[in-house]
Amino acid sequence: MTEDTAATHRPAAPTGAGPLLQLLRDGTPRTRSELAALTGLARSTVAGRVDALLAAGLIAPSGETASTGGRPPATFAFNPHARIALGADLGATHARLAITDLAGTVLAQTNADLDIALGPEAVLDWVVDHGHKLLDEVERPASDLLGVGIGLPGPVEHSTGKAVNPPIMPGWDGFDVPAYVRERWPVPVLVDNDVNIMALGEHFTSWSEAEHLLFIKAATGIGCGIIASGRVYRGAQGAAGDMGHIKVAGSEEALCRCGNTGCLEAVASGAAIAARLSERGIEAHGSLDVVELARSGSVPALRLIRQAGRDIGEVLAGAVNFFNPSVIVIGGSLALAGDHLLAGVREVIYQRSLPLATRHLRIAAARTGETGGAVGAGVMVIEHALDPDRLDLLLR
Amino acid sequence: MTEDTAATHRPAAPTGAGPLLQLLRDGTPRTRSELAALTGLARSTVAGRVDALLAAGLIAPSGETASTGGRPPATFAFNPHARIALGADLGATHARLAITDLAGTVLAQTNADLDIALGPEAVLDWVVDHGHKLLDEVERPASDLLGVGIGLPGPVEHSTGKAVNPPIMPGWDGFDVPAYVRERWPVPVLVDNDVNIMALGEHFTSWSEAEHLLFIKAATGIGCGIIASGRVYRGAQGAAGDMGHIKVAGSEEALCRCGNTGCLEAVASGAAIAARLSERGIEAHGSLDVVELARSGSVPALRLIRQAGRDIGEVLAGAVNFFNPSVIVIGGSLALAGDHLLAGVREVIYQRSLPLATRHLRIAAARTGETGGAVGAGVMVIEHALDPDRLDLLLR
Repeated sequence: MTEDTAATHRPAAPTGAGPLLQLLRDGTPRTRSELAALTGLARSTVAGRVDALLAAGLIAPSGETASTGGRPPATFAFNPHARIALGADLGATHARLAITDLAGTVLAQTNADLDIALGPEAVLDWVVDHGHKLLDEVERPASDLLGVGIGLPGPVEHSTGKAVNPPIMPGWDGFDVPAYVRERWPVPVLVDNDVNIMALGEHFTSWSEAEHLLFIKAATGIGCGIIASGRVYRGAQGAAGDMGHIKVAGSEEALCRCGNTGCLEAVASGAAIAARLSERGIEAHGSLDVVELARSGSVPALRLIRQAGRDIGEVLAGAVNFFNPSVIVIGGSLALAGDHLLAGVREVIYQRSLPLATRHLRIAAARTGETGGAVGAGVMVIEHALDPDRLDLLLR
Repeated sequence: MTEDTAATHRPAAPTGAGPLLQLLRDGTPRTRSELAALTGLARSTVAGRVDALLAAGLIAPSGETASTGGRPPATFAFNPHARIALGADLGATHARLAITDLAGTVLAQTNADLDIALGPEAVLDWVVDHGHKLLDEVERPASDLLGVGIGLPGPVEHSTGKAVNPPIMPGWDGFDVPAYVRERWPVPVLVDNDVNIMALGEHFTSWSEAEHLLFIKAATGIGCGIIASGRVYRGAQGAAGDMGHIKVAGSEEALCRCGNTGCLEAVASGAAIAARLSERGIEAHGSLDVVELARSGSVPALRLIRQAGRDIGEVLAGAVNFFNPSVIVIGGSLALAGDHLLAGVREVIYQRSLPLATRHLRIAAARTGETGGAVGAGVMVIEHALDPDRLDLLLR
């Protein structure tokens, strides 16, 4: 998917600096002796690896520690400013772009109404053009760019970076997104679906201590991004987390666009709620209208959102028993209508799941807000490049 | 959980031989040049690591390759006979013990009717006594033992090897299983629940190419072992795979022993089927009676097993959308009654799951049979010790 894929199979002789940087990424400054003690590596080995990380700018001297006498030993800390990542969150009708440092902090961002149906060239040209503008804004050269991460509103084959039969993205099916972007920037380009990058953004910025996390996007459709053992879990065909078509008990009469009945999306999505409101003579064309109605106090809208939360909770209760996550994050436009959705989710999960699985389970609203997807797309690039197994590629 | 846990945090200066052994574990003999080409390591580095693996006996010279002239280069292959593992599968009333080589091949085994309620000392003494007998039988010294793996019929905290509130194991709650066994054999002792080791055994012996696998044990209760990215997935509290208490649509009236209604175990377990048969005046005290009846052609038993398969399939359909596995293996005593259970599972999964998630999904009966658990317990030890991150401990 990126220019370093081939190189990954035949890496240069490794410096082995990955585990050292992994330790230092917690932000704590450490001396060479401390690093040797923590890793069990010989002090000469540590010295060589510290030098390689210093040369790449990924760590920097961070002052001196108190000492019992003589010259105090130097300490080193992770340098999040060494490189930058560009993340793009491309939705159906809206695009958002952010430049972050290596700690995921947003340095600059922009967004625009942009129809994904314009096709890959037009949309990706927008990403490249505005990416250059953001680079100018933060006064960093393109050579500082670690890579480009892109989230798409449809199924993506992550290993190739291509969209696969995306329902709302005419012209994108099979298009080689990384190759196109790399004609402009010769850096790694990673692509994933929007729910996975939102999960990654939430995990990285708010829940990095949680090993297993589920991120629910409840909007026009309903999807789930899975973080397992600290990484995005995609499953055998990259279809993991497709919870919108799991059957909800008691909703057998609801016909779904997939051809089955009783699917979660057929009863609890923004589109389904809007349809139910319309049936009652309340004008609502989509999930944003539903949110608007709920915010203005419409009791039917509030009740339907609460019930959608219960239906989502019903499906998640099974996922909790099965997957035993430590955190569930509820996001997407329906979650913007106050705590009604979250309350419904909590109600059913705590009632239906096993006590052992919910004893320490936290169920929370998304925190990253509208930039969550773009930040997550940048984080995807950072995690890829700084992975201990891949770091040596950066140090050559 | 084992004596090397502390050492893992401060390993000796690594030889880095792990990735080399990982390559060779496929059984293909390779020359030093081939290993250098495949890993990208310097030839001098490969030579040193090959020497370390030869010294430990983990690889062996395997003849010479054809050459274009001069002395033909030596090839090396994984040596599965270098060490052995002892695996114990402890059930409610039955115990099974196996010694395997490093490829998971059973070298010797034994089993006995043994009540887990006798308590940990009595049961583990049986494991140690009969383990010694098996060592004698295969004529290997205890120093060849790589470790001991133990599966227990209840919840286990894998990181400490202790059972946690096990419902059918009086005296085991919090008992330090690894410490007790290590008084007799000073080797790593790993403990997990029975479903996880059965999943591991099936994966290792029959489906090693499948990255993501679900193993269903349908017996007195119903549980699931999860292999994600080639490893046992345990979740935040080790409760992952607890599918017996997920709600089944249309079974709201069935009261479960957990206090909820409509749980899968309340309608589809061997215990539930036996209870329904008894209600109809057909004598059945547990899942083995149900299997016996089905094998003798009892139509009510066959129909109930088929329906149990559909109910299990209903819950698994959600898991398939969520987890997107490539293989589902159906095991446990109920699966021994012919293909009725499997047929019911397949019927509903293919009807309910998304086409993308089932396109390449295989749903199969367990293959490892009665020794599957003991082999899996041994495999747990092998995978632990030969893990590339931990291998250096063996080479000191």
